[in-house]
Parts: sequence; C-alpha cells; structure tokens
Amino acid sequence: MKTVKIALLGFGTVGSGTYDILEMNKSQISNSTGCNIEVSKILVRDLNKARASSLPQDLFTNNPADILEDPEIKVVVEVMGGLEPATEYILKALKNHKHVVSANKAAIAHSFEKLHSTALEHRVKFLYEASVCGGIPILTSLKTALQGNRFTKVEGILNGTSNYILSQMTDFKSDYSEVLKKAQELGFAEADPTADVEGIDAANKLSILISIMFGKNIHPDDIPTSGISQISLKDIEDAEAKKCKIKLIGEASVDNLDSDDPVISCSVKPVLIPFDHPLSGVNNEYNGVYVTGNAVGDLMFYGKGAGALPTGSAVVGDIIALLQYI
Amino acid sequence: MKTVKIALLGFGTVGSGTYDILEMNKSQISNSTGCNIEVSKILVRDLNKARASSLPQDLFTNNPADILEDPEIKVVVEVMGGLEPATEYILKALKNHKHVVSANKAAIAHSFEKLHSTALEHRVKFLYEASVCGGIPILTSLKTALQGNRFTKVEGILNGTSNYILSQMTDFKSDYSEVLKKAQELGFAEADPTADVEGIDAANKLSILISIMFGKNIHPDDIPTSGISQISLKDIEDAEAKKCKIKLIGEASVDNLDSDDPVISCSVKPVLIPFDHPLSGVNNEYNGVYVTGNAVGDLMFYGKGAGALPTGSAVVGDIIALLQYI
Repeated sequence: MKTVKIALLGFGTVGSGTYDILEMNKSQISNSTGCNIEVSKILVRDLNKARASSLPQDLFTNNPADILEDPEIKVVVEVMGGLEPATEYILKALKNHKHVVSANKAAIAHSFEKLHSTALEHRVKFLYEASVCGGIPILTSLKTALQGNRFTKVEGILNGTSNYILSQMTDFKSDYSEVLKKAQELGFAEADPTADVEGIDAANKLSILISIMFGKNIHPDDIPTSGISQISLKDIEDAEAKKCKIKLIGEASVDNLDSDDPVISCSVKPVLIPFDHPLSGVNNEYNGVYVTGNAVGDLMFYGKGAGALPTGSAVVGDIIALLQYI
Repeated sequence: MKTVKIALLGFGTVGSGTYDILEMNKSQISNSTGCNIEVSKILVRDLNKARASSLPQDLFTNNPADILEDPEIKVVVEVMGGLEPATEYILKALKNHKHVVSANKAAIAHSFEKLHSTALEHRVKFLYEASVCGGIPILTSLKTALQGNRFTKVEGILNGTSNYILSQMTDFKSDYSEVLKKAQELGFAEADPTADVEGIDAANKLSILISIMFGKNIHPDDIPTSGISQISLKDIEDAEAKKCKIKLIGEASVDNLDSDDPVISCSVKPVLIPFDHPLSGVNNEYNGVYVTGNAVGDLMFYGKGAGALPTGSAVVGDIIALLQYI
C-alpha cells in the first residue's frame, strides 16, 4: 500500500486532535483511501515544550520551510490559527503545488478569494470543512447533497463559548461575569474572550457561509456585529417571559433570489429565539446551523463546533477526501 | 455547452419534484455541472393521465425499454418506489452501463449488496441520498465529511407520517384514530398507512443507515420492528408526566467497536425521549437523525424527510454529483 506524506502546521487543540484521529481510526482510513497516511512533519513554535513521549522528537520542526519546501509532502494541514503567518503559509503551500486543509476561519474569511484563486491557479485543492462549526458537516453538505438548491437564508449559533455562557445564564440564573469566570476555569472560554463574546469569531464563520451559500464574499469587518457582553440576567428573564431564549445568531438572507445581483442582509447579534424553534434546543457548547433552500426547505445541523476530536473529525474528513481525489 | 440526457422512472411526487427543481434552478445547475441536463424520457404507467400542459406528450412512455435500452441516456433516476419492478429496472440500467440515482428505500434496503455489486461490476455509480430522510443530507455526510469517524450509534425519527401523528396526539391531546383520519385528509398519511405507522418504512431506512455506518447489511425483516398504532393518549400523557415525548425511533448501536466482527443491536419502536434531548424538538412531518461517531461526538440532522421538493433536492444533488463525476 502506498504511503502519502502529510504535514501539520500547528499542534494545539485541533492539531493534536487530528493526529489522534489518524492513529485511532488508522485501519478504516487506510481502507477508504487505499493508502497509509504518514504525518512526516509538524511545525511548532517551541521545540522544547513537553509532548507525549510516544511522539518522536524529530517529527517536530520550528522551520516552516521544512514543510512548505519539501516536495515529498503532498498535503499541508494548517491548524495553527490566526491571520498571520497562517495565511502566508497556506499561500506558499498552494503555490508549491500542495493540497491544503485548513481549520482557520479567520484566515479564510479574510482572504477567501485570494486563497481560492491561488489553489485554482496551481491546480490543487483547498478544503476547510473544520473552519465553520468544527465537526458539523455543513460546508460539504452545502457543496454536495444540497447543491441543487438556491439558498435563501442561514441562521446559526456559530460560537460555542458565547452559547455556553448564555445557556448557563439561562439555566442557573447567573450573571454574565460570574458565568464567564466559570467558563474560563473550565476551558470553555479563553483568558481574552473578546473574539468569542463580541461576535468576531461568529462573523468570520458567517462570512464563509455567505461565500458558499450565496456566491458573494462579504468581509467579516463589513458584517454588522454585536456580542453578548452587554446581556444581563434581566434580559434573559424578559426573554423567558416571552417564551424565548436569547442566542447569539449569525444570520444572512437574500430577498431578490431571481436577480442577477442578489442583495444580502447579514448580521451577528443576540436574537430572541422562540422556545419551539429548533435553534432554541441548541445549548451550551453545541452549535446549530439552520439553513433554508428553495428546494429542501428548512434544515438544521447540530453538533460540537469546537474541541480537539470534533474539529479534528472535519480535518480528517477533508484529508481523506483529498487522498481519494489524488 | 454539452447536453446530457437523463430519464426518470416514475413521475409521482418525487419524480415531479425532481423535474421541477431541474427547471427552477436550471442556470445554477448548468454552472456547477458544466452541462445542460435534458430529461429526455419519463416512464409512467398511464400515458393518458392528465399532466401539466407545459410538458410535451412525447416525453412520456410506458415502455421501460425506451429508457433502459437507449444508449443515449447516461443517467437513470428511479423514483417509482416499491420493490418490483423498480429493483429489476435499476439492475437493468446498471448492467447497461447507466449511472443510477434512486429514492427507493425499500428496493435499496432489500437488495443492498446486489445493487452495489452490480454497479461496481459495470463501473457505474449508484447514488441514493433521497432514500433516507428525503432532503436531509445524511448519507453524503456519513460518506464524506464524517468518514474519519468510526460510528457507535444512530437514533432517528425516520418517518414523517408517524411523527406527525404522535406530535398531533401530544399537542392536541387527541386519540390515535382521530389524528390518523385528519392526517389522511391532509395528505400526511396514505389510505393504507401500514408501512408508515407500523415502522416498516423506518426499518428500511435504518437498514440502509446500518450498511453505511457499520458496514454490515441487516435485512429490514431482521430488524425488530413495532409501530405506533397501539399508542394511546394515556401513554402520551404518562410520558409527559415523566418530562418525555413518545417518538418512533429507529436505533442501532455497536458496543464492541474494536472487534473485527462488531455486534450490532437495532430496533424500530416507540421510545420515551426526554424533553431536553434534541430529538424531542423534531415534530410533525420533520425527521431527525442523531448520530454518534468516535471523533465527532454527537451530531443531529433535522429537516423534511418527505415531499416533492425536499426529496427532489436530494435526487438533484445526486444527479449533479454524477455529472461532475462523469
């Protein structure tokens, strides 16, 4: 059986989850791709950081050229996050005729056209299912089984941290600051939670969804965005009195579907969701994406939008798809 | 632009929905396939049945050979339903080197291996996203974005008619027979509702899910199956007192995931679903499929499991995928 060499850029939560799944489900993955996947290099910042002793030390490098310039590496998996140097590395990999899998919503949302045109120009694939809602197979579904539809609307709970905070405030009648502190202790929120609680992360994901669903690129900075940091316990109780929950919703819709130049309305903001709407049942760290197509009607996807194994599941799905394509 | 000829076997709800979507979203479909799709023949039982005047009379035939023996037809779309002659026609089409798209859960569940081995032998594709839960992109997701997982469990509300009946009994505190009558009047239940209310339809879909998720074929007749016709209003009220809803659930799980010969438990039966479980929010004619994978964790897919356009959406998705493959 042929061996295909791949490399990871980054070995944080998603990178280690990806590595673990490739080990854990090795024989099934070999069966479905017809090849052995060898992770031959992993780019990290700090070579001296303590890592599982089962991992050979020479797997790691702090020199990106060891991956980006190695002609033996066919697939580069970018799981380092952040805009730079991630975007630069992805572009370099594509230009060096490597297929790229990425989980990086910020980099993709900010450079959607550039990344796609570079992949096209160099005749390689650029896949990024993990970038929107982790393990939920939303992008692949939109691009395959649902591609007979023209889409009219998407409403999504796209950020697990803010959904966790709102759910805990609702369930335990706690204040925002109290719940945020608990979420940080439990690892559901970062030390600097700004990107999550202010809707920035959700706007990146919504921007990618808009590109895929409506064929238009709207830069995340151009999406009107407000977060949940000003939501009080009283707001939540007032919502409950109206039989609603408050959810941070990324929403986009197109009214003039039959026009050549469809106008898209979009926003990320806290929204009242009635108890009987399916998104109301999406709680804590779960994500939910509710889409409407002109053939399929309403659909919802529900699952874990973050975490090592759920996000790794989407990364590995893309790696397998690439190897089947190669 | 190249024209590809396809043909429909059957022109009932799903067949006409498929035809309508191909018209309604024509330019988008041409863009994504790079070809024009021409429906060149439609097999019907009765040539004299009144049909929309926009459809040319010579599109229709009652002779299957006009489709199955026509070398110009590259893709056959089987949307007639029932075991025979549908299975015979699908096999004939595959043997004549035509790709086949089918929405026929009964035929696929009953002849899973035969249909797949025939397609493989004749090097053509056999796709059937529409056969399980209509518009919900469950099969494609399992086979693509989620293929890095080994699956441990599936629980699904797989039949819209029985879910509609149970939801209406719950919401309006009505008896089974009263709701069934109303459902029949509204077209949500057939004159002979047996296949839907006794779990036979759900068992067909579960059998297909088991084949895809666990790589084992379990004939639908071998799935322990009971339906909802014996559920009383008192059962529903007793469930509510326990903060549960009664749902008809098709369920399969594997315990010994790491064994070479996994043992699968499966059933179709009414189950108590707690109010806070996501499947509890899947009401009326909607379907929901809750799957668990060893990487992705829990996921749920929610949407319309029947109807002309939702089911047609899945059929058209498969047709587009085939044309992209050809």
